[in-house]
Amino acid sequence: MAAKTKTIAVRGPVLTFKDDPFKVGLEAAMRYESDAIVAMTGGKITHFGPAGAVRSKLPPGTAIKNYGKDTLITAGFIDSHVHFPQTPMIAAYGEQLLDWLNKYTFPTEQRYADKDFARRVAKVFLQENLRNGITSGCIYCTVYPQSVDALFEEAEKLGMRLAAGKVLMNRNAPEKLLDTTKSGYDDSKSLIRKWHGRGRLLYAITPRFAPTSTPDQLEATGALWKEHPDCYMQTHVSENKGEVAWVKELFPDRKGYLDVYDHYMLCGPRAVFGHGIHLTDEEMQRMHVSGSAISHCPTSNFFLGSGYFNLARAMKKERPVRVGLGTDLGAGTSFSILATLNEAYKAAQLNGNALSAGHAFYLATRGTAHAMYLEDKIGSIAPGMEADIVVLDLKSTPIIEYRMSHCKDFDEALFIQMTMGDDRAVLATYIAGQLAYSRPKQKRA
Amino acid sequence: MAAKTKTIAVRGPVLTFKDDPFKVGLEAAMRYESDAIVAMTGGKITHFGPAGAVRSKLPPGTAIKNYGKDTLITAGFIDSHVHFPQTPMIAAYGEQLLDWLNKYTFPTEQRYADKDFARRVAKVFLQENLRNGITSGCIYCTVYPQSVDALFEEAEKLGMRLAAGKVLMNRNAPEKLLDTTKSGYDDSKSLIRKWHGRGRLLYAITPRFAPTSTPDQLEATGALWKEHPDCYMQTHVSENKGEVAWVKELFPDRKGYLDVYDHYMLCGPRAVFGHGIHLTDEEMQRMHVSGSAISHCPTSNFFLGSGYFNLARAMKKERPVRVGLGTDLGAGTSFSILATLNEAYKAAQLNGNALSAGHAFYLATRGTAHAMYLEDKIGSIAPGMEADIVVLDLKSTPIIEYRMSHCKDFDEALFIQMTMGDDRAVLATYIAGQLAYSRPKQKRA
Repeated sequence: MAAKTKTIAVRGPVLTFKDDPFKVGLEAAMRYESDAIVAMTGGKITHFGPAGAVRSKLPPGTAIKNYGKDTLITAGFIDSHVHFPQTPMIAAYGEQLLDWLNKYTFPTEQRYADKDFARRVAKVFLQENLRNGITSGCIYCTVYPQSVDALFEEAEKLGMRLAAGKVLMNRNAPEKLLDTTKSGYDDSKSLIRKWHGRGRLLYAITPRFAPTSTPDQLEATGALWKEHPDCYMQTHVSENKGEVAWVKELFPDRKGYLDVYDHYMLCGPRAVFGHGIHLTDEEMQRMHVSGSAISHCPTSNFFLGSGYFNLARAMKKERPVRVGLGTDLGAGTSFSILATLNEAYKAAQLNGNALSAGHAFYLATRGTAHAMYLEDKIGSIAPGMEADIVVLDLKSTPIIEYRMSHCKDFDEALFIQMTMGDDRAVLATYIAGQLAYSRPKQKRA
Repeated sequence: MAAKTKTIAVRGPVLTFKDDPFKVGLEAAMRYESDAIVAMTGGKITHFGPAGAVRSKLPPGTAIKNYGKDTLITAGFIDSHVHFPQTPMIAAYGEQLLDWLNKYTFPTEQRYADKDFARRVAKVFLQENLRNGITSGCIYCTVYPQSVDALFEEAEKLGMRLAAGKVLMNRNAPEKLLDTTKSGYDDSKSLIRKWHGRGRLLYAITPRFAPTSTPDQLEATGALWKEHPDCYMQTHVSENKGEVAWVKELFPDRKGYLDVYDHYMLCGPRAVFGHGIHLTDEEMQRMHVSGSAISHCPTSNFFLGSGYFNLARAMKKERPVRVGLGTDLGAGTSFSILATLNEAYKAAQLNGNALSAGHAFYLATRGTAHAMYLEDKIGSIAPGMEADIVVLDLKSTPIIEYRMSHCKDFDEALFIQMTMGDDRAVLATYIAGQLAYSRPKQKRA
């Protein structure tokens, strides 16, 4: 591991966040250095600051990769809600949530009983993450433990910080995809022992959503989380109105959808709830008090016609809810976090608000780390943080390059990137201080 | 012009439409040939059919460019609503329609008094059209006649079939951007004489929207159109609720927004109304009866938070309205028609409907030609039609290539393209039978 203790340094404009702009305002939260150096050793960031000040402090002989003024270095992007097994079924046509699950998702997920298949998809999925500057995620596998092993084995090779887990699902799905309360508990427990805290890997206890678990399984899930409170708990809530109505039917004694999870002790720090579009004010309050997080997945919410999450409402200063960004592939339509931010802006606009580029980039990095209680490890650039970074090319296509020639300031440049950028904007991705992806050279039309 | 009378032939899978799938169903309307030849001479398509049948009928020595089985040849895309002067201001942050106009659009458009500037932008704009397979459009210029000359001069060099016109606007905008009823009429009349019907160019009489024209100007505009009924008339209607309310204040005697235009004789064949999101049922009926068209611009409607147009409602079989697709740049966020169809699907889903890929590709080609009363000239592939075609690469990015390896049929392949594809999917664009754009070779990660 000699190579990994060598210092690697990159130079260019750097954007990072010291605090939460939704709470303290953008000026206080955001740090922009127009010419900075970030040095990384042993998986951690060791130096960060203006190039002139940092250069002399680096170990003698440190090579500095200068990306130049038309780039932007930020913390790696984090995807707080994504289903890796759905990679082969992105763009499945014509249905809203519940029919989409039955028609496309459940048939696809049955293929993951085959670990070799799972491994092949995991490789494609993780490579696509790197191509899009995504360095961490909170990931759903399938009901099959071998699909979790496959993903973690591949992520371990790359040294990525990931949370993932086996789906718990003992009803309302095809027979082959069902576990039982006992097998689900036992399999999850084994996987936690094997993977949770191994290197950078973390386990996420993963009941798919209330309709596919019996009360009995939800209870066992709550017990399991209590036994392993430093694990994640991820599930879905209030994505689609039909789903909300169905949950009401299935759990008539509960006050609402979130209360089902709450009742079974599934709210709290490190609980990550996908979507939450239709949560009531009371439920938002409960999210806030319990320290639970919502993953906002705009491309998916539009694609399935679920609605448009009101981010400003969730972030209300009097009871802020932790919110992360999610691609939610394969209902999501893009691995690109920039494309996802474009859609987050559109969701905000449909709610009558705007989402500034600074707030958006916070959301994609430190904000999602905050939602996942990982902001002491990832999501920002500072000495001591884990060295996951992405280098963006600010002129990645002919039309973006042209648009940048009419750009007046950094805020606008950032907004142009999130509105018009895609995977091509990712010039390089570093995982734990090592170059993990570098964009091939492009010819221009 | 010897080169232009030479026959050029392309070979590959071809998709085209013989009729309107919203009326007769997809099966009756759509034609797919898995291995076809399209031959073009003198700007027109001369042959189209299965490769085996067509080959022997071509003039001796015709070279056939074989794009191969992983491509798709279609009619060129048509953009029925776009503002070329807004090219330098795509991704202008934070406002909804009326504030966005005042803060970004009006300051930008003042630069087009300078014809050289207008020409430089027109070149970029048209090149970006070609890069995205857009071969025709209905285009807003600025209030300055020289901005129209610049666009038409550049389009003429490329041989494109375009409609465009000078914005008419005599109130509620900065002084420098205002014409008068008389100067607007006179300048438009001169431009019509100069450009309408010259080669493939068409003139569009272009009152920006009701709030920026006095009743007097709208009346003069109606008179002008009556004098030149084969010109287009393009404007905006019912895009944003604040706008609708403002029109009610400005024109208290009219029944509604559309009725303002109707009153001044601005409804009818070749009237193209941008947006129409908030039109009432009665107004939709009037659209149908008058033969007017709506341009559906989903990326713009989301970006400005205007809403999501209900395409299925407009297409109702008992009173179908002509609807075309529009990028509406610079409020739109992409020149890519594929990306625009992705957002059209999402708008449909938010309305509780799905938009099939076949219907979507119809919309982007023959459907928009139908909306513009040009379906006898462009929008489909058949002998006698003008030879504007686009060749799509069905495996244009690593993730699309992977997704295509799990694709079961042509419908799914088409839906994958519109959900995940962008400018990279455009391999070649032909204008009037001549290769006008060819994608540079790409390296893959």
